[in-house]
Amino acid sequence: MPHIEIDAKLPGILGLLAFRAETAGPLNALVEALLRGPSPLSAAEREIIAAHVSRLNQCAFCFKSHAAAAGALLEVGVGIIEQISNETLQSTCSPKLAALIRIATEVQRSGKAVSVDAVAAARAAGATDVDVHDTVLIAAAFCMFNRYVDGLATWAPAGDEAYLEMGELLATRGYGAAASPQAPTDAG
Amino acid sequence: MPHIEIDAKLPGILGLLAFRAETAGPLNALVEALLRGPSPLSAAEREIIAAHVSRLNQCAFCFKSHAAAAGALLEVGVGIIEQISNETLQSTCSPKLAALIRIATEVQRSGKAVSVDAVAAARAAGATDVDVHDTVLIAAAFCMFNRYVDGLATWAPAGDEAYLEMGELLATRGYGAAASPQAPTDAG
Repeated sequence: MPHIEIDAKLPGILGLLAFRAETAGPLNALVEALLRGPSPLSAAEREIIAAHVSRLNQCAFCFKSHAAAAGALLEVGVGIIEQISNETLQSTCSPKLAALIRIATEVQRSGKAVSVDAVAAARAAGATDVDVHDTVLIAAAFCMFNRYVDGLATWAPAGDEAYLEMGELLATRGYGAAASPQAPTDAG
Repeated sequence: MPHIEIDAKLPGILGLLAFRAETAGPLNALVEALLRGPSPLSAAEREIIAAHVSRLNQCAFCFKSHAAAAGALLEVGVGIIEQISNETLQSTCSPKLAALIRIATEVQRSGKAVSVDAVAAARAAGATDVDVHDTVLIAAAFCMFNRYVDGLATWAPAGDEAYLEMGELLATRGYGAAASPQAPTDAG
């Protein structure tokens, strides 16, 4: 049960955004800038970084939502959730993205855990300053979103199929749409 | 040395905000809403929560900046930095704030670490749903800001006095002013 009284129909962050409009606006603007704004990283690559960090933080709602968004952007469906879970995706992603995922893994642990080695490896794989910046900030931001969603004990739909519709919505409409929350059905 | 090429004169988050205007806007809007927007918590109480979490994350720049802002708002100066460091402030703050600081401590560890007990203790001390919400989101947001600042290996002025001017600026002008960064001098 959530720690505060929010709309019981809305899972994950959706109930929280509806509860507090004052912070929902800036949060949506931030995630839109991070995951859909101008960047050398594609929207799908950024969703994969977001999903990876959310998985490390064991935040099921954020992990599956953002993995499903990446799956929709890449037109591979929610099967990508299992691929990211089993770390089989990393073997197929570009060397640059794999190196950036290593940086994101360090950020999830602590800002101070980011190593000169991991940054050098990303540069060797073609990453620019903006790639490194955006990776660090996306990983850091999901350490916020994950704590927000789980720190208030919101619920997450079980199963993977429940995230199909949300993934499509995030892929096609971005995070303006998240401001008018639509709950996924619990297919779990 | 920072992991990316930013203005060497600007410490902490200031160089990062100047480096990437696309994300600086939403980040400033978020911190302004969190620390200065409408809330049952005073601006000083919110700065104390931000400073406390930043200290737990060992982010010197964020810790001292936000502690100094609280000191300026409370008109007690940067001596508050040492008080928060030594946890002697908690014995003088209200029972409600002390209970919310306990929740923030749990959020810093993980979203899943927030306990029913800590939330119940906060309610017993008079906290409302909005107090609990705002505390969790502020603590979560500083888990982002701290990772951003340290994950890109920015520098922080040494000593406490260097934060006096920044604390005054944040107390009087809020986080719109942070968008036009003014570097504190390194008095350390």
